[in-house]
Amino acid sequence: MTERLVVIGGDAAGMTAASVAKRRAGAELDVVVLERSGWTSYSACGIPYWVGTKVAGPDALVARTPQQHRDNGIDVRLGAEAVGIDLTTRTVDVREGGRSSTVAFDSLLVATGAVPIRPDLPGIDADGIHGVQTLDDGRRLIDDLDGHDDAQVVIVGAGYIGIEMAEACLRRKLSTTLIDRSPEPLNGIDPELGRTVRETLSELGVAVAVPSAVESFGVDKHGRVESVTCADGTYPADLVILGLGVRAASDLARAAGLDIGAAGGIRTDPSMAVPGHERVWAAGDCVETWDRITGDWVYVPLGTHANKQGRVVGLNVTGADERFPGIVRTAITKVCELEVARTGLTERAARRAGFDLMTAQIDSTTRAGYFPGAAPMTVRMHAERRTGRLLGAQIVGHDGAGMRINACALALWNEMTAADLMTSDLAYAPPFTSVWDPVQVAARALVRQV
Amino acid sequence: MTERLVVIGGDAAGMTAASVAKRRAGAELDVVVLERSGWTSYSACGIPYWVGTKVAGPDALVARTPQQHRDNGIDVRLGAEAVGIDLTTRTVDVREGGRSSTVAFDSLLVATGAVPIRPDLPGIDADGIHGVQTLDDGRRLIDDLDGHDDAQVVIVGAGYIGIEMAEACLRRKLSTTLIDRSPEPLNGIDPELGRTVRETLSELGVAVAVPSAVESFGVDKHGRVESVTCADGTYPADLVILGLGVRAASDLARAAGLDIGAAGGIRTDPSMAVPGHERVWAAGDCVETWDRITGDWVYVPLGTHANKQGRVVGLNVTGADERFPGIVRTAITKVCELEVARTGLTERAARRAGFDLMTAQIDSTTRAGYFPGAAPMTVRMHAERRTGRLLGAQIVGHDGAGMRINACALALWNEMTAADLMTSDLAYAPPFTSVWDPVQVAARALVRQV
Repeated sequence: MTERLVVIGGDAAGMTAASVAKRRAGAELDVVVLERSGWTSYSACGIPYWVGTKVAGPDALVARTPQQHRDNGIDVRLGAEAVGIDLTTRTVDVREGGRSSTVAFDSLLVATGAVPIRPDLPGIDADGIHGVQTLDDGRRLIDDLDGHDDAQVVIVGAGYIGIEMAEACLRRKLSTTLIDRSPEPLNGIDPELGRTVRETLSELGVAVAVPSAVESFGVDKHGRVESVTCADGTYPADLVILGLGVRAASDLARAAGLDIGAAGGIRTDPSMAVPGHERVWAAGDCVETWDRITGDWVYVPLGTHANKQGRVVGLNVTGADERFPGIVRTAITKVCELEVARTGLTERAARRAGFDLMTAQIDSTTRAGYFPGAAPMTVRMHAERRTGRLLGAQIVGHDGAGMRINACALALWNEMTAADLMTSDLAYAPPFTSVWDPVQVAARALVRQV
Repeated sequence: MTERLVVIGGDAAGMTAASVAKRRAGAELDVVVLERSGWTSYSACGIPYWVGTKVAGPDALVARTPQQHRDNGIDVRLGAEAVGIDLTTRTVDVREGGRSSTVAFDSLLVATGAVPIRPDLPGIDADGIHGVQTLDDGRRLIDDLDGHDDAQVVIVGAGYIGIEMAEACLRRKLSTTLIDRSPEPLNGIDPELGRTVRETLSELGVAVAVPSAVESFGVDKHGRVESVTCADGTYPADLVILGLGVRAASDLARAAGLDIGAAGGIRTDPSMAVPGHERVWAAGDCVETWDRITGDWVYVPLGTHANKQGRVVGLNVTGADERFPGIVRTAITKVCELEVARTGLTERAARRAGFDLMTAQIDSTTRAGYFPGAAPMTVRMHAERRTGRLLGAQIVGHDGAGMRINACALALWNEMTAADLMTSDLAYAPPFTSVWDPVQVAARALVRQV
């Protein structure tokens, strides 16, 4: 008899799992995907560049359309919202248009993704306050921006989305204010480098208000936002973009009795199965994962993890024995020409985890110093004092600086010491790097402290 | 009593060792450097870009001048050629100008570098045939090129130097022919990617003659080269550049009784000491090192290894216990906009080493496919069939493709499998890479073959 896999959520994790499982099992597995929106398999990470008119959208951001998935034999149901999971009867309650129905499953994947954090502040529900997570969110924001040519935009939150949205507003030549309660933008990096991000944003014309906590939103008589009030003052705002991060969309899973962690995500084992429930998996932005450095459960919603977890589920649903190996919290972004990347622990996170730290920060260039186009870059690196084991690295710089983080990420992944990284065999030629690559210069600066 | 370190050769390995040792030992160590030329601490890798008028030279290529080293307390003797080493009396015979002298040492570092390979062919000693290894070589070549505005240049050998010199000649708008006996240029990469290098060179206007072995050089009545003859024909040549690689300048060491390996380089232990001789070290382009993948001794003369080995010597001379950990044969270069990088074993080298291989080759883009500036890149990767352990990777592509090799290099360094690399936490954002980085796409293609 044909078994059925039901997938709740048709983006990166869900559709990857569905595709891998269907490709392997063929007619022996009935794959049903319940997707609330009208889209599948899209790049949420591309939305800021769509808003900033750097890339076309929304179609260009779709890696695979619902029809392409259907052509592969997957039953994609759009506008179909899962509203309940019953693990006893092994069914999902679905609302589709006005109708309710029930879909039975043998295997279930919860891939419900994330929702933007909306702080419970006065005025938060006013028109013109936008969270940005889905293509539909992006469409609404763009329509609103298109309707407000000279808008004063306030971005609340200077994380990845916040600074990417600041770049998008700059490209639209809008007056833009970026507010964050942290001492510097991007609290995923140490403030010593966050300062470079702030200075760059300021030079580009963004008003950066840090540290500054939003207290309320002013609303005009039409119900539209008109200002943002912080402790230190009030900023006029025709339009507000929330960049306060996202939280796991785990309410449905919680209601069904799945285990939810302290960070709000669904807990799985390394096979991405939810412990205590037979043939129930979870993957993507709705799950927690483990930090390989600390061993702690963390919530890091990124498309790259969602894809990899989805692959693991697709394989395991069809009888394989795959593992998702955890993460080291690698991330990269940019503000116009300034590239920013990180991996491992920030200084604060490392201290909180109880490590006795050494820290080095070095300035270098992206190419040999004498080579045309050599651009400045800064590497900041942390290691455990007793063992020299690397704990984290961050990079800011131009023109190829950011992707150097991958060498650091693999050093952390393999538990290398600063000395190991310093002496490893990285590429060298003058058009590409210095004879000691900047990440090795940073490692050497740590070695000197031992 | 003050001890004395004598260093033979004042470039990367020698001056790094001298600097590190002097900084650590201060007045307790007398450091004498015997350098045949008038230069110290220069970037030989920058010479092709100096010839190509991309960078200024020669001063810009000098990282530290003799005077700067002297200011640090190092006795740098320029124009001083070591002509003999006596390990019994522990002295070096030196020829300096017309004078001969003897310098005694307590510790000795042989850092004599490399010399360009000049094949023993008819006409090889004609004027206008240039090897390129030192700044003085570079100066002579540039003077000759400057005196031959419309020169037809023939480059013999399509290794790194050969293709970098082809780029230099293109920048000088010279008619250029590149000859190599291998089936494709750059035999440090598999011919499947070498083909892309050949096609790029051809499109840029270089005549690429492969496979074609040089048999003789025609010489005019003034003793200057006028042609290059191969089995398949004769190429007119006003000027010839030899890009046949270099060999270790190990004759002095051999005469002194130091151990020389099959690849012609001095053999050392991991501390860079020469076994069987007390306080004698060797480092840089005159030594062999070991390939971490095969365990074999190999000759890979690169500035990055020379610097690292020099550091190890400088520390060990002054009482430390450092090790040079071997290499994985990482290298990078470019032909105008085409970046080319490799690490680990080529397919041929892996088969020769007895591995049962899997190979994957994938085409991807340097950024998310929908992002402006996404440029094509190809990754080719080898793994051991039985274990999945990665054995080698090569990349050709544009605009940031090449430096992806560092992720592969660290994967090899840490003996990762294709599955390990595929699931590791590399950076992702649309302006920088796809959600599966191209090196992970290649690893995944290998995993599918298991």
